Amino acid sequence: MPKFVYDFTEGNKDLKDLLGGKGANLAEMTNLGLPVPPGFTITAEACRRYLADGTLPGGLEEEIAEHLAALEAQTGKRLGSPEDPLLVSVRSGAKFSMPGMMETVLNVGLNDESVHGLAKQSGDNDRFAWDSYRRLIQMFGKTVLGIEGRFEDALDELKGGRADLDLDAADFQRLVETYKGIVREETGHEFPADPREQMRLAIKAVFDSWNAPRAIVYRRQERIPADLGTAVTICTMVFGNCGMDSGTGVAFTRDPGSGQQGVYGDYLQNAQGEDVVAGIRNTVPLQDLARIDEDSYRELLSIMETLENHYRDLCDIEFTIERGKLWMLQTRVGKRTPGAAFRIAVQLVDQGLIDLDEAVLRVTGDQLAHLMFPRFDRNADAKQITTGMNASPGAAVGKAVFSSERAVELAEQGESVILVRRETNPDDLSGMIAARGVLTSRGGKTSHAAVVARGMGKTCVCGAEELEVSARDRRFTAPGGIVVGEGEVISVDGSTGAVYLGEVPVVDSSVVEYFERGSAEDPLVRAVDRLMAHADSVRRLEVRANADTGEDAARARRFGGQGIGLCRTEHMFLGERRRLVEDLILAGGDEEREAALGALEPLQRADFAEIFEAMDGLPVTIRLIDPPLHEFLPDIVELSVRVALAGEEVSGRDRRLLEAVKRLHEQNPMLGLRGVRLGLVVPGLFAMQVRAIAAAAARSRAARAEIMIPLVGAVQELEHVRDEAAGILREAGVEALIGTMIEVPRAALTAGQIAEAADFFSFGTNDLTQMTWGFSRDDVEASFFTKYLDLGVFGVSPFETIDRDGVGRLIRVAAEEGRRTRPGLKLGICGEHGGDPESVHFCHEVGLDYVSCSPFRIPVARLEAARAALIAARTS
Amino acid sequence: MPKFVYDFTEGNKDLKDLLGGKGANLAEMTNLGLPVPPGFTITAEACRRYLADGTLPGGLEEEIAEHLAALEAQTGKRLGSPEDPLLVSVRSGAKFSMPGMMETVLNVGLNDESVHGLAKQSGDNDRFAWDSYRRLIQMFGKTVLGIEGRFEDALDELKGGRADLDLDAADFQRLVETYKGIVREETGHEFPADPREQMRLAIKAVFDSWNAPRAIVYRRQERIPADLGTAVTICTMVFGNCGMDSGTGVAFTRDPGSGQQGVYGDYLQNAQGEDVVAGIRNTVPLQDLARIDEDSYRELLSIMETLENHYRDLCDIEFTIERGKLWMLQTRVGKRTPGAAFRIAVQLVDQGLIDLDEAVLRVTGDQLAHLMFPRFDRNADAKQITTGMNASPGAAVGKAVFSSERAVELAEQGESVILVRRETNPDDLSGMIAARGVLTSRGGKTSHAAVVARGMGKTCVCGAEELEVSARDRRFTAPGGIVVGEGEVISVDGSTGAVYLGEVPVVDSSVVEYFERGSAEDPLVRAVDRLMAHADSVRRLEVRANADTGEDAARARRFGGQGIGLCRTEHMFLGERRRLVEDLILAGGDEEREAALGALEPLQRADFAEIFEAMDGLPVTIRLIDPPLHEFLPDIVELSVRVALAGEEVSGRDRRLLEAVKRLHEQNPMLGLRGVRLGLVVPGLFAMQVRAIAAAAARSRAARAEIMIPLVGAVQELEHVRDEAAGILREAGVEALIGTMIEVPRAALTAGQIAEAADFFSFGTNDLTQMTWGFSRDDVEASFFTKYLDLGVFGVSPFETIDRDGVGRLIRVAAEEGRRTRPGLKLGICGEHGGDPESVHFCHEVGLDYVSCSPFRIPVARLEAARAALIAARTS
Repeated sequence: MPKFVYDFTEGNKDLKDLLGGKGANLAEMTNLGLPVPPGFTITAEACRRYLADGTLPGGLEEEIAEHLAALEAQTGKRLGSPEDPLLVSVRSGAKFSMPGMMETVLNVGLNDESVHGLAKQSGDNDRFAWDSYRRLIQMFGKTVLGIEGRFEDALDELKGGRADLDLDAADFQRLVETYKGIVREETGHEFPADPREQMRLAIKAVFDSWNAPRAIVYRRQERIPADLGTAVTICTMVFGNCGMDSGTGVAFTRDPGSGQQGVYGDYLQNAQGEDVVAGIRNTVPLQDLARIDEDSYRELLSIMETLENHYRDLCDIEFTIERGKLWMLQTRVGKRTPGAAFRIAVQLVDQGLIDLDEAVLRVTGDQLAHLMFPRFDRNADAKQITTGMNASPGAAVGKAVFSSERAVELAEQGESVILVRRETNPDDLSGMIAARGVLTSRGGKTSHAAVVARGMGKTCVCGAEELEVSARDRRFTAPGGIVVGEGEVISVDGSTGAVYLGEVPVVDSSVVEYFERGSAEDPLVRAVDRLMAHADSVRRLEVRANADTGEDAARARRFGGQGIGLCRTEHMFLGERRRLVEDLILAGGDEEREAALGALEPLQRADFAEIFEAMDGLPVTIRLIDPPLHEFLPDIVELSVRVALAGEEVSGRDRRLLEAVKRLHEQNPMLGLRGVRLGLVVPGLFAMQVRAIAAAAARSRAARAEIMIPLVGAVQELEHVRDEAAGILREAGVEALIGTMIEVPRAALTAGQIAEAADFFSFGTNDLTQMTWGFSRDDVEASFFTKYLDLGVFGVSPFETIDRDGVGRLIRVAAEEGRRTRPGLKLGICGEHGGDPESVHFCHEVGLDYVSCSPFRIPVARLEAARAALIAARTS
Repeated sequence: MPKFVYDFTEGNKDLKDLLGGKGANLAEMTNLGLPVPPGFTITAEACRRYLADGTLPGGLEEEIAEHLAALEAQTGKRLGSPEDPLLVSVRSGAKFSMPGMMETVLNVGLNDESVHGLAKQSGDNDRFAWDSYRRLIQMFGKTVLGIEGRFEDALDELKGGRADLDLDAADFQRLVETYKGIVREETGHEFPADPREQMRLAIKAVFDSWNAPRAIVYRRQERIPADLGTAVTICTMVFGNCGMDSGTGVAFTRDPGSGQQGVYGDYLQNAQGEDVVAGIRNTVPLQDLARIDEDSYRELLSIMETLENHYRDLCDIEFTIERGKLWMLQTRVGKRTPGAAFRIAVQLVDQGLIDLDEAVLRVTGDQLAHLMFPRFDRNADAKQITTGMNASPGAAVGKAVFSSERAVELAEQGESVILVRRETNPDDLSGMIAARGVLTSRGGKTSHAAVVARGMGKTCVCGAEELEVSARDRRFTAPGGIVVGEGEVISVDGSTGAVYLGEVPVVDSSVVEYFERGSAEDPLVRAVDRLMAHADSVRRLEVRANADTGEDAARARRFGGQGIGLCRTEHMFLGERRRLVEDLILAGGDEEREAALGALEPLQRADFAEIFEAMDGLPVTIRLIDPPLHEFLPDIVELSVRVALAGEEVSGRDRRLLEAVKRLHEQNPMLGLRGVRLGLVVPGLFAMQVRAIAAAAARSRAARAEIMIPLVGAVQELEHVRDEAAGILREAGVEALIGTMIEVPRAALTAGQIAEAADFFSFGTNDLTQMTWGFSRDDVEASFFTKYLDLGVFGVSPFETIDRDGVGRLIRVAAEEGRRTRPGLKLGICGEHGGDPESVHFCHEVGLDYVSCSPFRIPVARLEAARAALIAARTS
């Protein structure tokens, strides 16, 4: 049987798995000699056993009794004593912070006897003692007994309009009786007078709160595993509400918004922590404590310095002053904004507390990505009307619309719109595409709106529950009686969840400015610059860009791209050139087909020349044409309707187009005639592209072309194309690598064979994910991903982060077996996962040579590649 | 350096890899003491090296010289001798028979001197000697020097209307001079007089003929590996054309058509083998040899008995009688019809030559399948007009049509049609679907027509090259001036390749009759009965049926099915019930949806009850609904056009239907909302099906239901459905297994996890193949499979036979890892591969418990399961 209970003196900050964040840090502070009220922690393991079996594990109660006895001995107080009672708090504390999600019971130990002892302890402060007692019954009643609302009603009735401070000891004593009556009525039992019974029930209630619905929802959103359980901390009560020489406060060792060092925090005199949260009185800035209680203030500053030096990071702190005596109630490494994260990391380096490796590990690609979105001007005079969940980052401004039809209509008229819905469903897809941003009043980060918006890279705030949205009336109402109707402009901040009335000016990201121009003027940008430089020096993975034009290629270089990992050629067949592709498809014979290809070739040559020039000697991986030909033709439904309505008057070209569309129509085009299949079936198509590459490369001696064949599933396919391409290159006197996408599961499964014919592999994880899971992204994100995230089939969409067990296994197999065949085989990834932090770590782990992603994500990939390398070095 | 040349005395029948079929069997006969003209064989390894390097491998010519010297010593003759010359034949001989595909040169060793020696040997038969000499130049000229047509023209000119036998020695001598002139003119060189040079060039020509276009095409069709190469046999010439006491013949040790024992063969007096092939004179039945040359006849019968006892199988034989002396020129285990294969195997058992295990190995599932097709009445008076390739078996009768449009038109009028085309292309798909059979004049077994027809299970004869098909004139012409126009009835035999004019009566297969009724009256059926009984006793794999109705289920049992491996429930939603599914889809809320499900439930219950009854205690695996809902709705293009044309007058239901169709429309429905996804997203759908199963099972105590969840890719999906289903079963008091299809690659890759929640796995190899290769069968068979088969990307469609390297690897991984998690995990396959012989062997190898296939394929699977077990036992 494991040890279920740890005294504060027995734990330390690294035992979060067991003691939760709170318990571990209380222990750490205790051992640092800081003034922590004595107490002990019941482990999360005890919670897990309780939740599995429905009863407290054997031995736990005995352990608790021993620790209680020790606590009584240490404090010289006794639970339930009418003279000098020991009171304790019973608090939840999981490994990961879940603020407000679980339960707490304070003042455990009070009953009709010990309330008198508490009065004595507090200098015959009867009012305080009875107030504390009624608080216990109220919290216990709600948390342990599940009684909602009635206590608050009784309190209001008693007050009859008076302020809290106007109530006296007798009032609270009467309230205690009323509360006990409520408990009796609601549960059929008396409020338990036995302090040990109070504690036992409170512990069970905290355990149970792990599986409260709101906790479950929160964990799912934050991707916290469901089976961790919570620890329970039992801590001697100290009171900030027993007079003006008492109080409670929170502090940060530096500004969590900017990272600047200094004294940041709030203090509330004669109050408990709950009062701060409830906002019954206004707090004062922490600096004012120097005036109120100079000794405690000095001590606090000294403790803050100790903590920051010890944790080597920003700490946030909760403290209480009980009649002039400072007590530390909590500390932890504090949350911070993305910008502060970079600045703090660099400051700590400058202070000599951490090295640059550690600093790079202290920031994340997600934080960097947030810094790269345009944001609302902080100095603007914006009226915030509510806050929802920051489901998909960005800053969007537009007219509020309440239906998809209207969104599409206005967008077609050139208007910017924000789609506002209670929640979205698959029918809203067209509206979401048309809108600049999406705002919903229901649903969390895995709701339809959130999932689909993230997939689109569209700004989204979801679950803004204060809003009442009426699609019928085309308006929503916000707190304070604000009504926003269709066409009124709102601004939505997907990075913070804030919603503003009117147009808030948007400012470009200074970090993007820095990448674009190289200037590092403000402190944030200097911090980013320094960490990125170090990141580049420690990462092993190269970072390339997915870029199809000279412009994209140039941006990719500015963002630090070391080459192009995916240049899609099909984009080059759109616009004005679509007509040439139609000619190719409608070609009646070899001659017409060759004429159509001949017309495309010089255009392609110019495309490639532009890109080679922009990349100036860096490698450029060009993927030969991939999508099915019918993508260049009109939609079959539209065209059929047009031809049917035209009747006899249909044009000859329309008639021929419809024939072609019907001939090329496929049930499942993603699984049809595309990629290498097209190259093998349409004579001359790939050859035209390779000739254009060769000619462009021949003109620019620095060009480093890598020709990539899409959709290969068998080595024989690749051999045929490679042989043809190699011949063309030889004739042109141009050297180029010839490799393949690994995007069909079979390619991964037969990678050992395919490597015989490939100079490189590039994992096309978009298609590989679609085929490995058997779902098409276009179809499924809207129709069932929300449900799947809710059901926990996956914790995050496999299109966002590589699914390690399925798709990842294929990548691992292909990397290993490809390199077994051809030891120097170059390996990369060019799906969208190449810019996803977790996926970059995976790519590092399986030994890829590079990741390729959109230019905008390159800095993220560079940073995460470094973090992956640092983590690997630490764990190896 | 390996040994390149083997004397006949050095080889044996098991050395076919090295010596080819011909060389190995000549060696075997030599060692049996049979009268084989002496000679030696050059190995296929020498050929492979020659083809790789372009020159004869070092040492080969020396070895040949040694063996030639030995041959001269043994025969007492000398190459090129003007007195008693040694003449030899130079013949190809690959491991697998490739009749007529490669080259042969006879009479090597003749020149202006040795021709006189040959005359002397043959009793001063000058005519024979000069005839032989001109034959050498003619064959050599064609084969080695590539001169086409001119020799035949010169012979015709010389004959001037006379018959061959009217030519005398002087004529042939003149012809030799003419031929030498042709060689000189065509090549610029003299015909080589040096016999060793003749032989060297002939050997190289035979090697080269391995890569002749027709040989390449043939190998591809017959799936013979391209890199085997051919051996070359050098054999002392014997002559059947040196008088009426000479002749040549072929013989079978039993009837290759029926398997009956007896003397079968043909004999031609005073002729060489080529003359029989050329058909210049009519052969006589082999029995007549008893009259012509009794001694040789007796000796031949004795040799045939020796051979059959030695080879323990039907042998076919080529022999020559040279002036009363019998020589064996070739033997091999003979080809036979499928019916004969069964009968012979059983006869050999009865004769004690082989045991039943061996007999089962002597027949194949393909042969059995052929016996199960209806066939044309052999006794009918049918006019065969040509023969093509037997591309897809069956017997089809219908009106000839020459375009797909016409095929569809007539088929819609209820006519049976045969689509006749030069070759088919993807545009012919609708016509092929409409037709009873397909006939083409171009293309082999991997042509578009052949591949697509096999995929459809449609009768097809392709490459009937004697036909001239004119789509414009809507007719074809056949040899003999026969013209067949549109609407004229023809009959096409896909099992033999025969094409008949008019309607040939079709008779049911006696083998199918036997399975259906159990009677075993004719010898063939008795043989099948005996071998199937033995097969059932030795196989390990169970065989189940894919059956969706009580009728199918009953047939499956008659064919030996041991249960149902796949009962598709979506078929139960078609026909009159389609309206109910529409109601379900159009349902506006929970209530309407539940009403629609409620209406479907009793119908489903009745469906299942019928099947449980038919299977009477055998297991029934029921797959919950799999396809996307929109499959039950009208086609989006048709409906859009209808609604557009109706304008304002569109009906309310059509409008609602179009909305639903648009809402449910998917880009790639195969990868969309279907299978378990549908079950998780549409509340109550799976539950309704499980309730129906439970209720049907509860009524019939013998019912053994196995509930199968389609399209699972993650264990979490299965857990949700299983938990719900298990609850329903528990409530109903019914026991049933709950398992999953493995048809998504990710399911195979995470099988170890999925097995936690599955009682069984059933490999859905149709979808697994589609997703692993990334192609949809509907789309790709027509658009690029032909090309892929031609290019050798695969040797056989992966939809016919499991692709071992890709799909097979996933199956192996899933089987192993599933059983590692759950040792007793039941494993089966229910894709169409379950009835494919090669795939059944694979299933046996990877340790599946059962295969499931269409009822008609069950006997094939039973037989191949036994053969797989026997082969495994032999090689283990």
